[in-house]
Amino acid sequence: MNGQDSLVQPLLTDFYQITMCYAYWKTGTHKEPAVFDVFFRKNPFHGEFTVFAGLEDCLRFVENFKFSQSDIEYVKKILPENAEPEFFEYLESLDGNDLTIEAVKEGSVVFPKVPLLTISGPLAMCQLIETSILNLVNYASLVATNAARFRQASGPDIQLLEFGLRRAQGPNGGLTASKYCYIGGFNGTSNVLAGKLYGIPVKGTQAHSFICSFSTPAELRTRSLKHKDSDTVGDLFEDSLEKRSWLLNQSKWGVVETEVSDGELAAFVAYAIAFPEGFLALIDTYDVLRSGVVNFVAVSLALHDFGYRSMGCRIDSGDLSYLSKELRSRFKAVSTLKPEYAFFEKMTIVASNDINEETIMSLNEQKHSIDAFGVGTHLVTCQKQPALGCVYKLVAQSDRPKIKLSQDVSKITIPGKKKCYRIFGKNGFAILDLMMLDSEPEPQPNQQILCRHPFEESKRALVNASKIVRLHEVYWSQGKITTPLPTLNDIKLHVNKSITEALRQDHRRYLNPTPYKVSVSEALYKFLHELWLQNAPIGQLE
Amino acid sequence: MNGQDSLVQPLLTDFYQITMCYAYWKTGTHKEPAVFDVFFRKNPFHGEFTVFAGLEDCLRFVENFKFSQSDIEYVKKILPENAEPEFFEYLESLDGNDLTIEAVKEGSVVFPKVPLLTISGPLAMCQLIETSILNLVNYASLVATNAARFRQASGPDIQLLEFGLRRAQGPNGGLTASKYCYIGGFNGTSNVLAGKLYGIPVKGTQAHSFICSFSTPAELRTRSLKHKDSDTVGDLFEDSLEKRSWLLNQSKWGVVETEVSDGELAAFVAYAIAFPEGFLALIDTYDVLRSGVVNFVAVSLALHDFGYRSMGCRIDSGDLSYLSKELRSRFKAVSTLKPEYAFFEKMTIVASNDINEETIMSLNEQKHSIDAFGVGTHLVTCQKQPALGCVYKLVAQSDRPKIKLSQDVSKITIPGKKKCYRIFGKNGFAILDLMMLDSEPEPQPNQQILCRHPFEESKRALVNASKIVRLHEVYWSQGKITTPLPTLNDIKLHVNKSITEALRQDHRRYLNPTPYKVSVSEALYKFLHELWLQNAPIGQLE
Repeated sequence: MNGQDSLVQPLLTDFYQITMCYAYWKTGTHKEPAVFDVFFRKNPFHGEFTVFAGLEDCLRFVENFKFSQSDIEYVKKILPENAEPEFFEYLESLDGNDLTIEAVKEGSVVFPKVPLLTISGPLAMCQLIETSILNLVNYASLVATNAARFRQASGPDIQLLEFGLRRAQGPNGGLTASKYCYIGGFNGTSNVLAGKLYGIPVKGTQAHSFICSFSTPAELRTRSLKHKDSDTVGDLFEDSLEKRSWLLNQSKWGVVETEVSDGELAAFVAYAIAFPEGFLALIDTYDVLRSGVVNFVAVSLALHDFGYRSMGCRIDSGDLSYLSKELRSRFKAVSTLKPEYAFFEKMTIVASNDINEETIMSLNEQKHSIDAFGVGTHLVTCQKQPALGCVYKLVAQSDRPKIKLSQDVSKITIPGKKKCYRIFGKNGFAILDLMMLDSEPEPQPNQQILCRHPFEESKRALVNASKIVRLHEVYWSQGKITTPLPTLNDIKLHVNKSITEALRQDHRRYLNPTPYKVSVSEALYKFLHELWLQNAPIGQLE
Repeated sequence: MNGQDSLVQPLLTDFYQITMCYAYWKTGTHKEPAVFDVFFRKNPFHGEFTVFAGLEDCLRFVENFKFSQSDIEYVKKILPENAEPEFFEYLESLDGNDLTIEAVKEGSVVFPKVPLLTISGPLAMCQLIETSILNLVNYASLVATNAARFRQASGPDIQLLEFGLRRAQGPNGGLTASKYCYIGGFNGTSNVLAGKLYGIPVKGTQAHSFICSFSTPAELRTRSLKHKDSDTVGDLFEDSLEKRSWLLNQSKWGVVETEVSDGELAAFVAYAIAFPEGFLALIDTYDVLRSGVVNFVAVSLALHDFGYRSMGCRIDSGDLSYLSKELRSRFKAVSTLKPEYAFFEKMTIVASNDINEETIMSLNEQKHSIDAFGVGTHLVTCQKQPALGCVYKLVAQSDRPKIKLSQDVSKITIPGKKKCYRIFGKNGFAILDLMMLDSEPEPQPNQQILCRHPFEESKRALVNASKIVRLHEVYWSQGKITTPLPTLNDIKLHVNKSITEALRQDHRRYLNPTPYKVSVSEALYKFLHELWLQNAPIGQLE
């Protein structure tokens, strides 16, 4: 099902994971029980939320983890010649059976510092999988978050279509983008392979090259179309030409027939003969208002004579707000020409061309009349911030908590294995996430819980929870996936629910969103700060 | 060899390629001979050159092009129910045998508007492969160009290492990045799978988690090391401790032993026992100057006693210029402590942490003392411009030239099949690229050639060429690769040569580089402008 299985293999890792693995093995700590947290430090895109994605890919990777004979041969070549042969036997023996993976539910909205995954197991094995796990989580979560932001910007009723394959990082970059944009809130993709592999609806009509391939009506070899409900066959081109003259006479569009491209009409007719039902035309090859819309309406009226209903048109250049409103007003005008043309009012207008979150919001302000956006480059490359920056940090080893210090406080890790909860208030929205020591009792609703900022001493709050949800479940244990995995559509629904039902609007808004609070319990606060002091070296002044 | 073969298949395309294919087939133009150009309109990264990459991937894609039975079944599902069954037989019959692909040599420096590839063949087949070709060329060329710019910024003597796997667009995004960064000018990658598949040198040492995994010397289970050239075995930790005390006494570094982390020393010793030769340590987990460098030197001096020579250290945070110079001065100081420590002067300093082109240039100005850069996020995501924007445009069909008009002149295509040349001046550098009609005679050196800007009437120049190189060769014809393909290392050499030997410094510089001229012949100019007028509709004023 995955489409990338062949690449997600143990060697898809940074070389230092293998050299560290050898060093752990040499010093004998390779089997010490360790705990690693996967988390990020900052939400992407100047926002205050992130969508967690990539969990199933991580689990499949661990499920299939096994060095092949040729992998071992290759590792022998790149390690120093005097590396001990027993190490390679050890590598060969490795699999995911000794790992335990706890994770947040895929598609959940998540926040800085809270572990997305906690991976426990033998130190060296945990270390070995770091890069692959980060690779699988980072981009998936980033692009799902980006897609969710496009959905927030466009509102629930607009169709969002992902058109990014040609701009992605190679074939699999494109596939990954299609999959995670879909779960993030897109309705479909142009990527046919993603459709085949993941069951995502595929969408698309024609490119400018198709329109350009017909310069004159002479290039149209077939003109005949069968009526939808009878055996009558007619000439769709002739009928379209007639409709066009009639339309230009009836309408007050100020267009003369010499301005309207006959090649474009021929191209539309060719496409309509192939797809008479649900005809959708690209109308900006020549001039949207002086040619494209005229030809589109002409062909649509002709198709109507043959019993077919057109779906709409796409614009890929120009002032999308202005054009969409002009198109809508023309479609409304057509809808009043005859009662049977009333359907024209509901014609779909698709817009593409360098769409990003800001474009959509600006179009909203201008009260655009667009029904669907096709988005490519900005969506899949995440132009505004093309990397998420998840990290994978050791937090405990042989029951000793570990802390990574840094002169930059935001880079200090929160040590030890933790329990994490999302605390909901009376109105149903989430108030904050709370991390606690693994040994603490579960927090209870309707009791005062003291929640502290992990690093700022004075930031504390008492919280009275209406509902408390534990964030992590065990997904992998003793060599097996232990929690049933949701389908892609389940994850998609969960993303939407997780954002719109649980997250207050002020955390979601584009401009200056309120940071969502991530806190620690009093016990974890003390534990963290004691360990910090223990590990920070003591300087000496003169 | 490719590592992404399983994904590069006919369905890795936009759905509209298939709907257009059906429409061409319905109207009977699907077999008309067509010519498509692949080109871009603007160099990336505010630069004035681009490195062309991805050609071999395109050829392999065409070589293997064949719809599988399950592909056909899937296409049947997504096309309307009444699509004609003969179309699917036609799809099944398709392969790359009727295509001809001309291309610029992979790794060449290229410029806007000049075709990177020209693909000729049956209209529908050419159309079908558009998305895959763009997907394979766009990111490969973009990231190769980015790598080449890092190389330009760092100069020829610095080691550049690609560390981007965890930030790339999934597994294959990471592989593609590693491959094309290598050809663009990087010396190695951390990506082990890229090493295995493509033979790229792999590099890497240890992460902060390795250092953190040793909090105290008690966690060091093995301390003994065998002398390189004898059977003597000693305690590397004890020796390192001694060396550390001696060093702190000898040096004037102002560091007291309580400031220096014993856990870090234990980690270094563990790593050095595994890799005594060429020891390279990550020294910024605690404090570079008050702990990391002290422990590194101590272990290196101890290793020296055992007959091994250390390689250097890596810093991953802080002021890289200041730290690198401080490290160098400390290494120099150590090199003077005893004659046998002279090798310390040449210790390698590796820097990582959010390195981009500008960081490198700023470090150059500050006269840094870094020998190698490890670059991840900015390199593989091409943060500054994460998409190249190659397009695939119809330029001729059944011997009729085709032009795509646009109100934006920069988007007008240059019609017809063309011959393209690079014109070199006396000093050996390229002067301009020249596109001509396919029917024109070859331009000759040492004769005046009139070169015109394709769209600005008054921009013309007479050029006297010392050397003229035809840019395109036929790489694919009659179902076969017709030109021997270079190895990855050949391409890498060609990139370097193409940039540094042929391209004037002012085209290459970072700030306000001179645009390289792309011109057309007098005949192509006239042809283009006549076709433009023929195709532009005539408006009517009152």
